[in-house]
Amino acid sequence: MQSRVSELFGIEYPIIAGGMVWCSGWRLASAVSNAGGLGLIGAGSMTAEVLQEHIAKCKAATDKPFGVNVPLMKPNSAEIMEVIAQEHVPVVFTSAGSPKKWTSWLHERGIKVAHVVSSSTFARKCEEAGVDAVVAEGFEAGGHNGKEETTTLCLIPAARRATSLPLIAAGGITSGEAILATRVLGAEGVQIGTLFALTQESGAHEAFKRRCLDLNEGDTKLLLRKLSPTRLVKGGFYNAIEAAENRGASSEELLEIIGIGKTKVGIFDGDIENGELEIGQAASLLKGNEIEPVATVIQRLVLEYEQALSALG
Amino acid sequence: MQSRVSELFGIEYPIIAGGMVWCSGWRLASAVSNAGGLGLIGAGSMTAEVLQEHIAKCKAATDKPFGVNVPLMKPNSAEIMEVIAQEHVPVVFTSAGSPKKWTSWLHERGIKVAHVVSSSTFARKCEEAGVDAVVAEGFEAGGHNGKEETTTLCLIPAARRATSLPLIAAGGITSGEAILATRVLGAEGVQIGTLFALTQESGAHEAFKRRCLDLNEGDTKLLLRKLSPTRLVKGGFYNAIEAAENRGASSEELLEIIGIGKTKVGIFDGDIENGELEIGQAASLLKGNEIEPVATVIQRLVLEYEQALSALG
Repeated sequence: MQSRVSELFGIEYPIIAGGMVWCSGWRLASAVSNAGGLGLIGAGSMTAEVLQEHIAKCKAATDKPFGVNVPLMKPNSAEIMEVIAQEHVPVVFTSAGSPKKWTSWLHERGIKVAHVVSSSTFARKCEEAGVDAVVAEGFEAGGHNGKEETTTLCLIPAARRATSLPLIAAGGITSGEAILATRVLGAEGVQIGTLFALTQESGAHEAFKRRCLDLNEGDTKLLLRKLSPTRLVKGGFYNAIEAAENRGASSEELLEIIGIGKTKVGIFDGDIENGELEIGQAASLLKGNEIEPVATVIQRLVLEYEQALSALG
Repeated sequence: MQSRVSELFGIEYPIIAGGMVWCSGWRLASAVSNAGGLGLIGAGSMTAEVLQEHIAKCKAATDKPFGVNVPLMKPNSAEIMEVIAQEHVPVVFTSAGSPKKWTSWLHERGIKVAHVVSSSTFARKCEEAGVDAVVAEGFEAGGHNGKEETTTLCLIPAARRATSLPLIAAGGITSGEAILATRVLGAEGVQIGTLFALTQESGAHEAFKRRCLDLNEGDTKLLLRKLSPTRLVKGGFYNAIEAAENRGASSEELLEIIGIGKTKVGIFDGDIENGELEIGQAASLLKGNEIEPVATVIQRLVLEYEQALSALG
């Protein structure tokens, strides 16, 4: 499974755990790094102070490389970046903004930068911005999503043509077979969200994890196209959004329904009826699974990958 | 590339050309079969009489196996089936209906049956109905699409678990690498639409083919969720539907905008502004390609597949 991606980050397997709001604290990040992948702390749901605490605890829990994911539309992203630099975090994954914004600043401080894109146009911009690796994330992914709705199967070959940078596939990947499939399409590693959001070490509430491990096909859908396309899990919050959209609600009306802090209510507090639940489409492939430790998940991915590779002869 | 699918149909490569309205006449079907795949005549846009003519011409143009695709919601499907039986067509692909409806009847007449599904629930029903092979078609596919919006990357593993029947992957496949990727996920062959719709032998108008070979990522989208989810190409017809949906139009209003015979206007007559244009999401991966002969396309798929397989080596 070794590739330019594992080399770049100095990790055993090119398996990155996406930095997910309310899921990706120091426990998840350090567990992933300790198991040979790259753990990311998700700064999207953190103040600079809380992030600093998570970084300190992550350092205490692992001596392996780890990173922080920073959604660039966050109002506190400058403060977040200062903490990252102070703490000498070795890797930053940026998303939801321009890769030009922070790349040089981070490079000057010796920090490696990957940027998340959902189109080949942005993959090209990553190369111009000088980032070290590109994450191409398809329509299957949970939460915020690209406007083009390009699936991982179509996006990876497009991103592969657009850039010669190390390429990381994301969206819909929950098995070693899927890792191998994206490698065949041109990726050199994977970023996985869903699978890690539902592990023991994830910061999400158990009720959220259990709900997501009980989904059928079609139980997550992309909604909120008028604002920022977001993959949501069916439930009370989802139903309210969907009903509003079906009657032609405006962006303003939708914003009012969304309210503030609903991902915390759903994912962290575990109110699966009223909260905003975000998970990837591939959750339905995990139906009936237990809430497992990260190490078990990564060992299985590696085993499945090797078996799928040898099955090809 | 040999598999249970190529064995079942007695073909060289397990590559099936989807039966597409206005594209899949005898010319396309016979060219695919002559090149070692399985060509399908698309009965969806044909009267029984027209189908009979296409079958006769297809027989004259190839001595290899070919088939007919029958969308079961067609009001004339009983007549269509009679023609297929009379003409001793060796293979039928059914879609958009229950696999139980015609399978025994076709089997009694010595005809092999594959059924197209978009969920593992229906893959299971196929096995109960006794069909010979299952086509699992993902969200990427052009035209009519599943309500679950499950992408090929997520659907193939789900269908693989649901049935032990020969499994054919469809949706988003335009390269040998993609064929190998779906094989890694558990498929034993592919059904390809987009790539063949845009060949020289396709019955579609040249203006339609040129438009589809000039699409960017995001230029096809799934609309019409209130009726039957359909992937459409951006243009006048698309814009009218999208605007209506954004203002909350009812099914009745949408049906009025759709009107009658708009796929003929768009795909066959080549009025790319007013007609309904259906193509798969992966068309953007073909941007800038020429309108090629089928034989060139199939040879390239096989070569890419072999190269991708040895690259893993």
